[in-house]
This record gives sequence, structure tokens and C-alpha cells, in this order.
Amino acid sequence: MASLYPSLNMESTMRYNDKYVIHYDFGDADYDTAIEEFKTLLIDLEAAGLHTEIRPGYDRSILVFVKVPRVLLGNNVYKGRVKDWLYSITQTHPGGDKDTIVEGKFEAEDLLAVYHLVHWPKDMGGAGITPEVGQWENVKSIFPLHNEPVNNSLLRHLSRRVLITVEDLDQIRDLFGSKVAFYFAFIQNYLIFLLFPAATGVIAWMWLPKYSLSYAILTSIWCSVFLEYWKLQQVDLSIRWDVRGVHKSKINRPEFKYEKTMIDSHGRTIHFFPKWKQIARQSLQVPFILVATAVLGVIIIAVFALEVLVSEAYDGPYQNYLEYVPTVLLAVAIPYISSALESVAETLTKYENHRTADVHEVSMTQKIFMLNIITNYLPILLVAFVYIPFGDEVVPWLKQTLVTFFPKLDGAVVVHKFTPDADKLRNEVIALTLTGQLSSFFEENIMPMIKHKLSGMYRSYRRKYSKQAMLLTMVEDDKEEVEFLASVRNQSTLAQYNVHEDMAELVLQFGYLALFSPVWPLIPLGFLINNWIELRSDFAKICIEHQRPAPARADGVGPWVMSLEILTWVGSISTAAIVHLFGTDTFGTKSWFSLPLTIFVSEHILLLLRAITRWIFERYGSEQIRKERDERYARRLKYLEQIEANKRAGVNLTVAEREKRRSVLITDSDKFWTKQVEDGQSAAAGLNLINMARKWEDDQGSKPKQS
Amino acid sequence: MASLYPSLNMESTMRYNDKYVIHYDFGDADYDTAIEEFKTLLIDLEAAGLHTEIRPGYDRSILVFVKVPRVLLGNNVYKGRVKDWLYSITQTHPGGDKDTIVEGKFEAEDLLAVYHLVHWPKDMGGAGITPEVGQWENVKSIFPLHNEPVNNSLLRHLSRRVLITVEDLDQIRDLFGSKVAFYFAFIQNYLIFLLFPAATGVIAWMWLPKYSLSYAILTSIWCSVFLEYWKLQQVDLSIRWDVRGVHKSKINRPEFKYEKTMIDSHGRTIHFFPKWKQIARQSLQVPFILVATAVLGVIIIAVFALEVLVSEAYDGPYQNYLEYVPTVLLAVAIPYISSALESVAETLTKYENHRTADVHEVSMTQKIFMLNIITNYLPILLVAFVYIPFGDEVVPWLKQTLVTFFPKLDGAVVVHKFTPDADKLRNEVIALTLTGQLSSFFEENIMPMIKHKLSGMYRSYRRKYSKQAMLLTMVEDDKEEVEFLASVRNQSTLAQYNVHEDMAELVLQFGYLALFSPVWPLIPLGFLINNWIELRSDFAKICIEHQRPAPARADGVGPWVMSLEILTWVGSISTAAIVHLFGTDTFGTKSWFSLPLTIFVSEHILLLLRAITRWIFERYGSEQIRKERDERYARRLKYLEQIEANKRAGVNLTVAEREKRRSVLITDSDKFWTKQVEDGQSAAAGLNLINMARKWEDDQGSKPKQS
Repeated sequence: MASLYPSLNMESTMRYNDKYVIHYDFGDADYDTAIEEFKTLLIDLEAAGLHTEIRPGYDRSILVFVKVPRVLLGNNVYKGRVKDWLYSITQTHPGGDKDTIVEGKFEAEDLLAVYHLVHWPKDMGGAGITPEVGQWENVKSIFPLHNEPVNNSLLRHLSRRVLITVEDLDQIRDLFGSKVAFYFAFIQNYLIFLLFPAATGVIAWMWLPKYSLSYAILTSIWCSVFLEYWKLQQVDLSIRWDVRGVHKSKINRPEFKYEKTMIDSHGRTIHFFPKWKQIARQSLQVPFILVATAVLGVIIIAVFALEVLVSEAYDGPYQNYLEYVPTVLLAVAIPYISSALESVAETLTKYENHRTADVHEVSMTQKIFMLNIITNYLPILLVAFVYIPFGDEVVPWLKQTLVTFFPKLDGAVVVHKFTPDADKLRNEVIALTLTGQLSSFFEENIMPMIKHKLSGMYRSYRRKYSKQAMLLTMVEDDKEEVEFLASVRNQSTLAQYNVHEDMAELVLQFGYLALFSPVWPLIPLGFLINNWIELRSDFAKICIEHQRPAPARADGVGPWVMSLEILTWVGSISTAAIVHLFGTDTFGTKSWFSLPLTIFVSEHILLLLRAITRWIFERYGSEQIRKERDERYARRLKYLEQIEANKRAGVNLTVAEREKRRSVLITDSDKFWTKQVEDGQSAAAGLNLINMARKWEDDQGSKPKQS
Repeated sequence: MASLYPSLNMESTMRYNDKYVIHYDFGDADYDTAIEEFKTLLIDLEAAGLHTEIRPGYDRSILVFVKVPRVLLGNNVYKGRVKDWLYSITQTHPGGDKDTIVEGKFEAEDLLAVYHLVHWPKDMGGAGITPEVGQWENVKSIFPLHNEPVNNSLLRHLSRRVLITVEDLDQIRDLFGSKVAFYFAFIQNYLIFLLFPAATGVIAWMWLPKYSLSYAILTSIWCSVFLEYWKLQQVDLSIRWDVRGVHKSKINRPEFKYEKTMIDSHGRTIHFFPKWKQIARQSLQVPFILVATAVLGVIIIAVFALEVLVSEAYDGPYQNYLEYVPTVLLAVAIPYISSALESVAETLTKYENHRTADVHEVSMTQKIFMLNIITNYLPILLVAFVYIPFGDEVVPWLKQTLVTFFPKLDGAVVVHKFTPDADKLRNEVIALTLTGQLSSFFEENIMPMIKHKLSGMYRSYRRKYSKQAMLLTMVEDDKEEVEFLASVRNQSTLAQYNVHEDMAELVLQFGYLALFSPVWPLIPLGFLINNWIELRSDFAKICIEHQRPAPARADGVGPWVMSLEILTWVGSISTAAIVHLFGTDTFGTKSWFSLPLTIFVSEHILLLLRAITRWIFERYGSEQIRKERDERYARRLKYLEQIEANKRAGVNLTVAEREKRRSVLITDSDKFWTKQVEDGQSAAAGLNLINMARKWEDDQGSKPKQS
């Protein structure tokens, strides 16, 4: 794991596998509390067997460098492996005893052991430090150090290759753990699969009619096949990375509130929280999503209505300027409303009181994702299924309503003939997908950089002119450590990385494809290019703009698979409806009556295809699963050979053994079983019967024909 | 396990746990072949370590009584337990070594070991006897002996109880193995759940309008809830009976044909048959089902058409008699066509070349089930969605066609006014369900009894007047054995029991409920009564009319769960359509345009409800799963305690250990980590920093307010 990166500074010989940094900020605490807290912090770390070094951080914060002694680390890595075996995550016991010391197979394995030593509660052998929670409110973050040489070389490697291989994914796993690696595995698989709709999309764009049925069908099938393939791939990778079923071994999150503790018959302490309460609390999601949809829907409809009115019906003064007002209003309002809704979602998720950090995180991200779905897809759905088909009825009605409420406008509003425009749908989708991809790229990659630069400038400005104590103005760094400490201080100010946010973005993108592909068949080409860049820029983003993520493990992308499945399903309904309403064959007639039938047929064809795809993939199976099964078989065989030295119990018996068997039979209380005890007596009895039959027939002189 | 049944005959002391009977029939072979075969049979049995006794059977057949020596049986039961542990079916190793001998926990466990000794191939330690296959074509059957005392006492017990408890199911498992017991568990759960639709059905029948929407909705929801509950129950029972995941440890069926054998890297012999071929062959099911549907459909439609014509339109001579002709024709033809289709299904299943007997059996039964579904539901669907809605268009058209083909009839066919009759649907459903239940009861319980009695009479007639050799006329039984041998000879002529046939019947019944419940809400009440009897009569049927089933194991009802799910799904479509078309609100208007919408809404509401039910059931979990998890936890804890004697690595270090740790740290090549090696230096450094900040602020005289 030691870096081979040629450099003269101290990093060249530095190992990153056994270190963590705790960022303690006493800026918000009074000094006496801070001193007590800090003492406790160090005592707890030491009690867990960790060595610490203290250096000043930015402003009024302290960096606690934590290092795990070699013996403790090796032993903890070993214990982790034993636990994996106990939880059936791996299949073979690693051997060794309680004092065994092993080397981690890769950096993230070691780092996970360090993470556990710092984070886990004291009764599990950790120091129990949980940043920003309860007692440790002033611990702002705990993070491993970026292995910059490896980061850089991997980044260069990735940007030079056209396709990412499984070995590259292994390297990402080695660095950041399997949870992050699964995101990259997903985007890579998705990328390769995108080649198909991108190619067919170009063909459809050039030669097929607008809103082409065949393109819609192909894309729907593609969505299903991709999903089933990914599910198999996910299992395959989870076996490759020894993390299959890893979600089973998660510990309670410190914020989890229980009603009482009980000790069960196995001496296990159970933190009891009633199931029905959890279910009831989680059911609150439903009204929340409904209300959020309603709120966002009303706002979007209002803006739409205004836009329509101004552009189509209003002919008064300032028309040119007024046309832009609603869109500007929406652009300004949406972030505020979104963030309000997101904070409600956060409160709700906390209230749901999940037992493990994993489930909590997932629940939170899913809620945010639902809000994103609504803000992104609702405008398109409204354009497709309300604005265009019913525009000629809605616009006059809107005008009427407006005049009723504001009689003064009566003169200004004129009656244009409203012509619903099928291209409006196409433009809406293009605008939303393109600006969506661009703005998210900006938001993810450019914004944080600017923000980070600006806050750095503000920090150095403050250091000079602040009225508060700034530790760095009082202490000077050791010359040899200057560069290293500068890097760590920089990392301490970076944001934490949440892989679910990146996944949500991809799933949202997949949704555009599944729901609206026939609207503009060039979408997948755009996504293909975007994702090729995204894969690399996301890796760079983690290296540069985020603290190194804790090397968490996962056995897949978790609940996102279900999101993708739901989107595919809804997609089969949505694309059918779009093709039905706007396809060149049917547009103009707007046959609403037959729409449900089209949807019904399309949906069930897709469901059938999905079932068939799933069946074939399951039959065909996965390479890793087969390999694992073979290994299991070999283990069993070895074991069985030990207990089955002589498989055929009646062969090669000694005379003594035969005699013994006979004597056992003869003493049987049931006489029935004692009559043909001697060797060959049974056979003789049977042959006798057959021969008797033969003789009888010979006597009759009438051997019957064989039937 | 020994019987406590008070009786004076030899059965009173007989044990049934270590015996099997092989029924060898040389009636169709010539004598020399028979002698060779029989010799081989006995040699193979002996080589497997089994003791045999020979007695004559009916006609020209021999009964080979097989008994497993105590030591061999106990050791094989033990090995079976070890294998279960190796395949993760059970969680704890049973202890012991290769010579360990154990008592089976119940009769079926012992019998399973005997079954394996007789059936399994020689390289697995068995005798390799496979009835009616290849070399053993003349071995007609291999069966364990009915434990009549226990059978009778359990039958009496079951018929006295209103409800069957889990303990009763345990007893069935002890006797016939878990595969059969799961059928009884299913029917019992289904029975209890039926109370709800039976009660609401009576209410609907008395107070609600015909084709009631609310009753249809309630029944649809009930179907989903029942299914989800059963799935949980199934897991629960499979843990209770130690068979969870038992399908993983099945061996090849002897008929399985492989293209080549390979030896893989673990020394395992692989019987290779390409995956794609299997998939391709299994895909033949689809055209088969389509063709079968078409054939059955055409026949049913033709009969319908004739019936309609005769009753509605024909007014010529013999009208009274002619009316019954089509139905009689159908009744006569259907069994022939069905059996032709079934034999095609059988050929097809053989061609599919399944690896395990389990999968083969399932594939076969599913095909037969599909054929049953078509013959049973197609008439109702035709009445509901073709005959009644389109009768007034179809009947005149039919008449016209008839006149075109048979101009002679022109005078005879008169023009009645055709009135579609909504009650026709009700009558059709009542007729089909009632006669279905009655005829299946007759077919299952009465017919075999009559058949068996008749063939017994024929046999004793033949014994006297036959030209062929009849062993029983030549050999006289030992007096003590007369009664026992009579019973065994009787059992040897009985049919084998196939639990899937009984399951298919229940699933078909469930389908009536799911698809057509609103037609006649009293159906569930009828089913409730029928099933209460069925449960008991099925148990009696196994005891009296069938050979004792091999004690096969299963971890649930297998593929039937999927059949039930599909029926529930289709039911949400079918009931919606029926209520929409015949419900009192909409009947008469026959609003075909809005039908797809109704179906769409109904289907998706059901899917949503199913998802919610599943989510709640999964959250709530099962008692057994929790118990198993607890036990696993206890095992892990015990193990972990061994390796984690001192969890907190930094606490209670001796002076020497501290000194050693320090010296390791000091020799670190990286000086950064050597600065605060001594105890308390880190804490001192940190506190120093905090105090510096405090002093700086005290000097400035401007302690800022806490934010």
C-alpha cells in the first residue's frame, strides 16, 4: 500500500491505511466546556488503543491525528474478517486465533478497521466518537486522509482509457470502499448500455417519423434488459468483492432512540422500539409526498398559466418584458420551496427513527429523490397531457377567470386563436434535460470549487483582521510538516461525499429515457457523452472537492434498483401515451377513448418481456455465482470424504462383520425378518418363485406371448 | 416411533421407520431376463448394506422387503444431518464423527435415509434402484409401508378437531415428510382465511346489489393479503421443520441426459448440458400453451355456438333432444382431448431434460395446470365477455353462416329475438364450481375406491381361471404373516400420491375466487365447506387409496406461489371488467369505451395495495425468522467472546506493554508521529492550544458571544 510516487516531501514515505483525522472546533463552545470535552475525547481515543498527535487547525479548531498501532490494526482487520465469516458474508473461516495479525488486502480494508475503532461504541471496542451528535457536537468531522499519489495516478489512468475495466473498479474499491465503487460500476455499465439507444436514437432521428412507435418500444425493452443485467452484475461484483449480504451486519446508529432495553434469553441486549410505531411513522411519507406534489404542482401550473396567458392572450403594454416574469419567478422560487420541502423531509426522516445509518441515509435520499422527480418530470407531464391536448379549452377558460378577478384587464386581454403546438413538448424536454445536465455539472464541479476558493480567501482575510482568536496566527508549523498540514487543513474544510446524491442524478436521467424517449430520440446520445465525462469528473470531484469518504461497504446500489424498476414500469405507460397522442398516425384525431387500451397493452407487453428477460438471465446465471458454488461444493466434498470413507456399506465386509450383522438380524423380535438371513437365501427364494412360474407354464404348455 | 396401538397381530410391535418394499413384476419379461435382473437387484441391494426378505406378490410379481440394519440407518441419518448443515439448511453442526449413530427425530427422517439408500446412485452409497426407468423397467414401485396405527389415530384426531394446529401439521410432517405437510399447511391457512370472504359473501348476497363493486374490491384485497401472509408462513414453517433452502441439495434424476461429462478444477464430475439448449427447449412451452388454448377454445366455442343455435334459433323437429347433443358431445370429447394434450405435455417435459426430479415434476404439473385453467375458465370468460355482450350480434350471424353452409335448414331456422341474459353468467359459474368440486371429490375419493375394488375382484377371478402362472396359487403364506402380507400386497397395487395434483386443485379454486368472485358471492362459503371436508378426506385418501408417499422434503409449495400471484393479478383485471359490464349501475349502457380505464385503475390499485401489504408484512417479520436470528446471534456472540477477550485495547495495559508501544512509535520513520508519544502529551498540546486562544481573547478583552 505504501506509495511509490517519486517525490521529496514527506508524503512519499507516508502510509494512509492506518490514519484518521478528527476535526474538533471549539469556536462555538465556551472554553471550560471545550477543555473538558477535549480531555474526554483524548481519553476515549487512548482507551481504544489509538495514538494521537495534536496540531492546530483553521480558526479556532484543533486537528487530532489518530494513528492505530500496527498490532491493533492487524488484529482488528482479522477480527473483521472473522465477523464477515460469522455473518456468512464470506464462506471460509480465515483461520488463526484471537491474537492473529493480518495485513489488509487493500487500503480500504485497513481504513474500515480504523473507522470502526474510532466510531463504534465503547462496548464494541471503539472510541465511540460520533461527529455532530450529542456529546460530540463540536467534533465537526472525522475523515481518512486522501492518498493523493494513488488518487492522481488513478485519475490519469481513468482519463486515458475509453472503457473502464473490472480491474479499474477494483482499484476504486481498494481506495474508497465498495459502496463508492458500486456507483462507478453502475455508471460504467449504464454507459456501455447507452450505446444502443444512442445509436438507434440517431437512426430514429434521421429516418423515422417523429414520436416513433418502434423507437419507443426498443427503448422500453432496453430499459428492462439493462436493469435485469445490472441486477446480475451487482451480485457478481458483490461476490467478487466479498461483500454479499453485508447489509446484514450493520450496527445501530447513535441517534436511534429506543423505548426500553431488554435482555433476551441469549444474553443479548435488545434496544426495543415497537414495530408498529416504525411502520406508522414511515407511513407519514405518503401524505408528505402527496402534499409536496400538490404544492409543487400548483406552483408549476400557476407559472404555466401565467406564461400561457402572457404569451398567448395578453397584448397590452410591456408584453415583451412581462413574458419572462413567470419563468424568472419560478426560477427564483423553486430553490426556496425545494429547500423548505427538503428540510421537512429531513425532520421526517429523523422522526422515522431508523436503526442503522444505512437505512436512515437511504430513506432521506429517497425522499429528496421523489422531490426531484416531481420538480423535473411534472412540467413535462403537464405539457404533454394537459397543455397541448386541452390548450384550446384551458386558455380561454383561463382568460375568462382572469378577467373575472381583474376586471381592469378586460381591454388588454385579446382573443388570439390558441394553437396547441406539438413541438412545445419537444422543446420542453430538450430544455429540461440539457439545462439539467449542464446545471448539475456546474453545481457539482464548478460551484464547490468557487465556493471553496472564496471561503479560503475569506479565511485568510479573517485571520488577519478578526477580533477572535485564530490559532494559526499564534503557532508556527514545523518546517517539515508545513506542506502536509496545509493539505490536511484544506481537507478538513471540504464537504463530505454522499454517493446517493450522484446515484440520484443518474436515476433521474434514466427516468427521462424511460418516460420520454420518443419525444426526442437524440436524448440518449447526449446522456452518453455526458456520462462519459461524468464518470471521470465524479472521480476527480471526490479526490479534490470532498473529504475522502469513509470506506463503507455495500452489496449493490441498494434501493435504487427499485426506483429504476418503478421508472421503467411508469415509462411503459408514459411512452405509450405519448406515442398514442403525438405519433404521426394518431395525432390530430386525439383518440382519448382508445388511450387506456394502448396503455394497458403496452404496459402488459413490457411486464411480460421483463418476466422473460428475468427468466433467461436467471437461467443463464452469473459467472461469479457459479464460481462460488463450485468452491462451496469443493469444501463440502472435502468434508464429506472425511465422513464417508466407505460409501457402499455392504461391500468389503469382513467375515466377522457379516457374522455380527446376521446375529443382530436373528435376534430380531419380528420373525418375518429372520427367514432369509443367510447369504444368498433371498436371491434363492426369489429365483425359486420365478422358476415355479416358469415350470407351471411349461406344464400347461402355453407360454403366453410377451405383451 | 414404535406404535402403541393395542392389537394382537404382528403389527403391534412393528417399526415402520427402517423398511421399504420393492415391487418387482416379471409378467412382461421372459424368464431368463427376469432371473438375471432379479439377481442383480439383490446384489445391488446387498452391496448397499441392506437386508432383504422375499415374498410372492399378486399375479407374477415378487415383493422384496428391504430393511436397513440399525447401525447403517443411524449413521445415514447422521450423515444426512451433516449434509444439511453443509448446505446451510440447518445452522449448527450436529457434532460427532464418521461413525456416529443417531436416532431419527421422527419416522419420516429415518425413512428418508432408507429412501436414499435404495434410490441414490451407487457412487453416492445407494443401491441405485429407479422404478420403471431403463434397467429397472420391471421394478413397478418402491414404497415405504403405511404406519396404519398412527394413520388411524391421526385421522381420528383430525376429524374430531375443528381447527388444525401447528402441532398437528408437525405430526403429518413426521409421517409423510415436509413436502406433503406443506400442502396441509396451505389448505389449513387458506381455510381460515376463507372465513372472511365467506362472511362478506353472505352479507353481499343478502344486502348488496348483484355484481357488487365493494364485494369485488374486498375479495381482491383479501387475495393479496392471504398470499403475502402465506409467503411469510411458508418461511416460518420451513425454519420450524429445518428444511429452509432444501431445494439446493437435490441430486440429478437418472433420466437426465447430458452431452458430456467434465471434471472441473475441484475434482467434481460435471454432467454438462448446455444452458441455451435448456432455455430453447423450455421455450417450446409457449407455442404448446398457445396451440392448446386455441384447440380447446375452438372446441368450446363450437359447442357454445351449437348450443345457442339449437336453443335460440332452431325450431325444427327433435328440438328437445337436439338441445342436449352439443353438451353431451363436449362432455365426451373433453377427456380425450385433455388426455391427448396431457400426453403431449408429458413428452414435452421429458424433452426439456430437467436436472432434478423436483423441477421435472413441477414443470409437468404446471403444464397440466395450465390446461386445467383453460378448460375451466375459458367457458366462463366466453360467456362473460362474448356471449352476453355480443350475443345479439353473434347469434344472427351464426344463423346466417349456418344457412349458407346448409341451405336445407333454411326453413327450420327461425328468427327468434335473441335476448342476452345476465343470469347466464351466474348459472355458468355456479354450475362449473359446484360440479367441479363434486366431480373432483368423486374422482379423487370414490372412483379410485371403486376401481380398486373392481380390479381386486378381477384379480381373484383371474387367479382361478387364468392361463398364466399366478404365484399366489402355488405358494402358501406363513400363518403369522397372512394379515401383514395381505396388507402389503394391497399397498403394492395402490397408486402413487402426487401432492401437486391436490395443490393444483386448490389453486384452481383460488382462481375462481380471484377471477369471478362478484358473479356469485356465495362461492367462498361453498369453498369453505368443501375445503373443511377436503383437508380430512385428503388425509384419508393418502392413507387408504395411495401408497405411502416417499418422505420427500420441500421448503414450501414452490412454484404454486407464483401461480397464485398471477391469478390474483389477472383477477384484479377480470373482476373489474365483470363489475364494470354487469354491475347494476353500468349494465345496460355497456360502456365499452371506459372499460380499459376501469381495468387500468383497478389493476394498479391492487398492485399498490399488494406492495403496501408486502412492505408491512416484511417489516413486521415472522416469529421463526426472529428466533432463528436470535440463535444465530447467540452463536456469533459466543464465538466473538472467544476472540475478543479484551475489547478495549487501550485499557488495562501493563507498564511493559505501554513501554513497548512507545518504543514502536518512536522508531517510526515518520517523525510527525513521534512528537507526542509520552502519556498525556497529546492532551497537554490540545489544552495548550485552547488556552492560548482563551488568553488571546482575554488580552483583547472581547470574548465574543457564543453563536
